[in-house]
Amino acid sequence: MSGPRVLVVAATHGNERNAPWLLEGWRRNPAALASDGVVLALEIGNPVAYAASTRYLDRDLNRSFRLDLLADASRKEREIGRARELLALHGPDGTQPCVVVIDLHSTTSAMGNSLVVYGRRPADLALAAGIQGRLGLPIYLHEADAAQTGFLVERWPCGLVIEVGPVPQGVIDPTICRQTQLGLEAALAVIREAAAGQLRLPQRLVVHRHRGSVDVPREPDGTPAACVDRRRQGRDWQPLQAGDPLFRSRDGEALAFVPPPELGGEPAWPVFINEAAYGEKGIALSLTTRELWPVEAGWGEALKALLQRGTPL
Amino acid sequence: MSGPRVLVVAATHGNERNAPWLLEGWRRNPAALASDGVVLALEIGNPVAYAASTRYLDRDLNRSFRLDLLADASRKEREIGRARELLALHGPDGTQPCVVVIDLHSTTSAMGNSLVVYGRRPADLALAAGIQGRLGLPIYLHEADAAQTGFLVERWPCGLVIEVGPVPQGVIDPTICRQTQLGLEAALAVIREAAAGQLRLPQRLVVHRHRGSVDVPREPDGTPAACVDRRRQGRDWQPLQAGDPLFRSRDGEALAFVPPPELGGEPAWPVFINEAAYGEKGIALSLTTRELWPVEAGWGEALKALLQRGTPL
Repeated sequence: MSGPRVLVVAATHGNERNAPWLLEGWRRNPAALASDGVVLALEIGNPVAYAASTRYLDRDLNRSFRLDLLADASRKEREIGRARELLALHGPDGTQPCVVVIDLHSTTSAMGNSLVVYGRRPADLALAAGIQGRLGLPIYLHEADAAQTGFLVERWPCGLVIEVGPVPQGVIDPTICRQTQLGLEAALAVIREAAAGQLRLPQRLVVHRHRGSVDVPREPDGTPAACVDRRRQGRDWQPLQAGDPLFRSRDGEALAFVPPPELGGEPAWPVFINEAAYGEKGIALSLTTRELWPVEAGWGEALKALLQRGTPL
Repeated sequence: MSGPRVLVVAATHGNERNAPWLLEGWRRNPAALASDGVVLALEIGNPVAYAASTRYLDRDLNRSFRLDLLADASRKEREIGRARELLALHGPDGTQPCVVVIDLHSTTSAMGNSLVVYGRRPADLALAAGIQGRLGLPIYLHEADAAQTGFLVERWPCGLVIEVGPVPQGVIDPTICRQTQLGLEAALAVIREAAAGQLRLPQRLVVHRHRGSVDVPREPDGTPAACVDRRRQGRDWQPLQAGDPLFRSRDGEALAFVPPPELGGEPAWPVFINEAAYGEKGIALSLTTRELWPVEAGWGEALKALLQRGTPL
């Protein structure tokens, strides 16, 4: 088959069960996914964790794609092994290489249907701009976060995460499934158009750029001393002003938001508010600034060149 | 101290994090919980699973209180050991005995603030009727389910579960916390009044009686072949009629509800719809019938006798 080869990954986190449920359906009935012209490789990211319905076994697979970890033969964690395996199979130099990866996630946060882009690779920005032009999805640009590295999509020449919520871990929800499929089909349509040299991008891109993360206040022993205030719970992508109630202490006191210096005085737009899996990472929410970027001609050209060069089998 | 001794358990399931967060607060500041006259023992049900933020390690603690398991010295699962430990400490014959237990749970289902009662012990029904009279909470009467046994509260002379949702596993939500505390404070108020011989119960009790459970349709290999229909998702405690859409197949077909014979022709009131933890138990939802029971004088007398006999230290 010809056409660009795209890797679609579900259950990179084994307790996010909507995308793998969809993926198993597409394997049984490929016509259920609108993908004409794109050659798909469908993979369960972390099959062992998926079977156990847990996020991961030894370490977070989506923090295990760091080059130093992959190259260190002494690292035997199952997720590092699986990362090597996925790259050996579908990495740019793999046996069944793919040029683009779409990694399907869900979240307990009220993120809606959204995209996560890691850094500013032109081809990624073209893909994200194309999807935003079709569906209007918000984009969380994750960059400059030394504490969170080793994401799956960074090991492919182009790729992004489709992140849908809110949905509890372990729950299949038909609305979450529908949004996930819509996001993926838009991505595949953009890739198809770009490969054919027919991609038209919008003039501007709305980006929510990562500027830092905030943990809940904690007791000296590390247990939470407050929880997210009910007036902020579920309000991802909505601006947070200095003085707005953000947390609620054990004795019922509202704790106001104090903008950290890394915001540079700009308004904060929070994302991933109260994501269940981020407690262990010390993240109660992340702060972004909302930016309007002109779409550069070079982005679409980079994506087109990547797809037309392709990865011969 | 005098007054009835009540055991309050949180994190019987380690990934249900609202109740243990409250409980840690009550330990630090007992005045934060209205409990005057009642002597409380506060316990984290499954501390090891709670530390790991997972439901359980070896087996579900809340199915581990079967007499045969507790008595079988060859059973070494950590949860069976913890069940024995809780009974040795706070069981009716324990070193710090309690006569009543309140077990605090949360669910991903839209159960709201609700009570679960196991069987028809008069003292349990008195306690539940007293709480329903104060707060109007719905009651799920779990009985005649051979596949689900060994619940914690069954090993105490009186006890029930306060079940609050929807909330994802691993997430602390201020609304869920507030509902949990309201439910517990109502329970303690009823116990205090019953111990003082001052309990006035409503004339009638609304009970949702368990009649059976329904699994999602499954493929021959056991994977789900359908998910809960979006028109039913989140509609716990709302009647389900024959022919109503219940599931949605992979190819988008709505699968209608067919009332099983165990309903005896009565309307079905579903509970625990799409609870994340019940997938492994083969339960997509449970079916109840809604019944209006006259409150019997013997219930309140049984609770009063239990509390006034007490459990001397």
